[in-house]
Amino acid sequence: MQPWIDLQQVRGRAPLIHNITNYVVMNSTANALLAVGASPVMAHAIEELDEMVAIASALVINIGTLSEHWVESMSRAGRAARRRGIPIVLDPVGSGATRMRTTVALRLIDEAQPTVIRGNASEIRSLVLGEKETRGVDSTRTSEESVDAARSLAKQARCVVTVSGATDVIVDSERVVRVHNGNPLMTRVTGMGCTATAVTAAFAAVNADALQAAAHAMAVVGIAGEIAAERSAGPGSLQVNFLDVLYGLTEPEMRKRLRSEGP
Amino acid sequence: MQPWIDLQQVRGRAPLIHNITNYVVMNSTANALLAVGASPVMAHAIEELDEMVAIASALVINIGTLSEHWVESMSRAGRAARRRGIPIVLDPVGSGATRMRTTVALRLIDEAQPTVIRGNASEIRSLVLGEKETRGVDSTRTSEESVDAARSLAKQARCVVTVSGATDVIVDSERVVRVHNGNPLMTRVTGMGCTATAVTAAFAAVNADALQAAAHAMAVVGIAGEIAAERSAGPGSLQVNFLDVLYGLTEPEMRKRLRSEGP
Amino acid sequence: MQPWIDLQQVRGRAPLIHNITNYVVMNSTANALLAVGASPVMAHAIEELDEMVAIASALVINIGTLSEHWVESMSRAGRAARRRGIPIVLDPVGSGATRMRTTVALRLIDEAQPTVIRGNASEIRSLVLGEKETRGVDSTRTSEESVDAARSLAKQARCVVTVSGATDVIVDSERVVRVHNGNPLMTRVTGMGCTATAVTAAFAAVNADALQAAAHAMAVVGIAGEIAAERSAGPGSLQVNFLDVLYGLTEPEMRKRLRSEGP
Repeated sequence: MQPWIDLQQVRGRAPLIHNITNYVVMNSTANALLAVGASPVMAHAIEELDEMVAIASALVINIGTLSEHWVESMSRAGRAARRRGIPIVLDPVGSGATRMRTTVALRLIDEAQPTVIRGNASEIRSLVLGEKETRGVDSTRTSEESVDAARSLAKQARCVVTVSGATDVIVDSERVVRVHNGNPLMTRVTGMGCTATAVTAAFAAVNADALQAAAHAMAVVGIAGEIAAERSAGPGSLQVNFLDVLYGLTEPEMRKRLRSEGP
Repeated sequence: MQPWIDLQQVRGRAPLIHNITNYVVMNSTANALLAVGASPVMAHAIEELDEMVAIASALVINIGTLSEHWVESMSRAGRAARRRGIPIVLDPVGSGATRMRTTVALRLIDEAQPTVIRGNASEIRSLVLGEKETRGVDSTRTSEESVDAARSLAKQARCVVTVSGATDVIVDSERVVRVHNGNPLMTRVTGMGCTATAVTAAFAAVNADALQAAAHAMAVVGIAGEIAAERSAGPGSLQVNFLDVLYGLTEPEMRKRLRSEGP
Repeated sequence: MQPWIDLQQVRGRAPLIHNITNYVVMNSTANALLAVGASPVMAHAIEELDEMVAIASALVINIGTLSEHWVESMSRAGRAARRRGIPIVLDPVGSGATRMRTTVALRLIDEAQPTVIRGNASEIRSLVLGEKETRGVDSTRTSEESVDAARSLAKQARCVVTVSGATDVIVDSERVVRVHNGNPLMTRVTGMGCTATAVTAAFAAVNADALQAAAHAMAVVGIAGEIAAERSAGPGSLQVNFLDVLYGLTEPEMRKRLRSEGP
């Protein structure tokens, strides 16, 4: 089973994932990367970015708590990662909610040429040139509208695009994968989307087919989330159980739970 | 029961709460807001504050890990929120411990004219003009002294003031509410006060009577904390159980537990 | 038993520990300090550092998420703490991985003259002048090589050096203590090393023998970690159980578990 093979690769190789991410999720992202078997590092100082990228196997750029200096760091790290050819995963948190976020996300897409962009439906739509501007938080569009927006962005940015939702949609310019795993309680834990982004980077570090890597990451996160949710009394215990389940996930559990369609 | 009605309103409307808060509690604050049914957003870049305030239902300003740029963001967001008339809740973390914190808190009170100020007894006293300056952490004063200081600050700043402690005291220029819920183990979890501040903002977003909103928020946080503490072996599990209980809190539980006095 | 006496002192005196630390671990560090009985404060604004140091019983400097302004804050706080004679514990996170980190750590050692430096084997080696430069994350060297590097750094910096690992090695210019407590699952939780650094500061605040304080802190963290790991299904529950166990740790538990060698 392909997602299991990728997970085994991550556990075996422990790829170093360099994260420039938001303050809210730094701790939970680092813990999720450790639980899945990767090695997280968080670093944003301009002075050390080139060296950090040089030892990393993938780069995560997440714009959740932006400011001017951090944008410069994201830009620099993104360009360094692009030059070195390591996978880059961009999480355009809140794109569409403010002009700054949309502008910064588009700039980073242009400069870093990310391997994968992962967001919710409204974030992804906000990045499709020519789409009507959206405002605020809205991740309720139907799966088919999401596919169209994701495909447009995938072609425009020449990358893989993941739209998270009840069904996760992962596309490149030709292929579509749908992953039906997950549990609604996951939306009551902050940063589960950011975790999915970071796990996508870990999988992209071990699987050169970025569409497959992104789809497998969403499957693993969704499966771990749904097992954890069944054991949880609420979002507090979900967060704890998610890390435990992710750490101990077995092939039979994954085989039994996996609900994905597509190549 | 009034606190229950407010909680149902928060759960039904999911108000967007904009937080400019400290690094230590960003994750736990976001999770508490999600657990209570609100939608958190953290954003501090000057360039996007006006737009973020424009889509928010309330603003939290928390000075726990200050620096020069962040003070400018707090000032700008506070003035924008004031112009738009949305509730503002200020948490003057550490006011009285350093001159900078006291000065910044007083500046923000002047500029933003907060709807509610929530702090411990020594923080609140440090903001009452003419009071002898205090230093360090001291939240042990008796309830009656706290009422006097809170009332002075409420008159001076024309707002509601919440003093957290074994008994929470909530005042405006005329009324006093006392809430006797909570559990001492809550003081061994970082950011429980900051959580109370954020939940106060969620309640102020759905109840225009700021005194009632603040008192109901303290009741809900106190009740969730005491139920969670009874199920917990220490501060680690308290943190987890608090989110679970807050998420699932029922009317019978609240009715049975509520111990408040006042209007 | 000496570690127990120190723990009782921390619980009784609740020393105020001033932390200038990285974004990833601020929350978990504050919670660990509260669980062990200390009072954490996080503050980094240049304008308030002198006042904050003046009310603190110890200072933690942790370079995990550096940037230019933060380095200036660390330098200023370190010099202020040195002038006041309070214990300083330095955690040179990632030293050796980038030139910036090594340079900043060496600068802080020179300016602040820390009481204790705590890191993993590769971080400590990177700070020994004349050692061949190392790159990346490598904490697998044997205990004996670690002792040599730690002793060199201890002499060079005239302080206590703690090298964390399967066996923790704590040295000054003459003495060596080895602590064999802990559990490998602790390495799958982010910031356990940073927690050990902060707990070291709490113990140094109550025990003037810095070697003893550092060794006792490592014993308490290791014992709490191994008890917690035995009760945990993975790294998520370990994090929760660690705080609960640290909070409730008893003398019989410590006596039964303690495995240390040396003075």
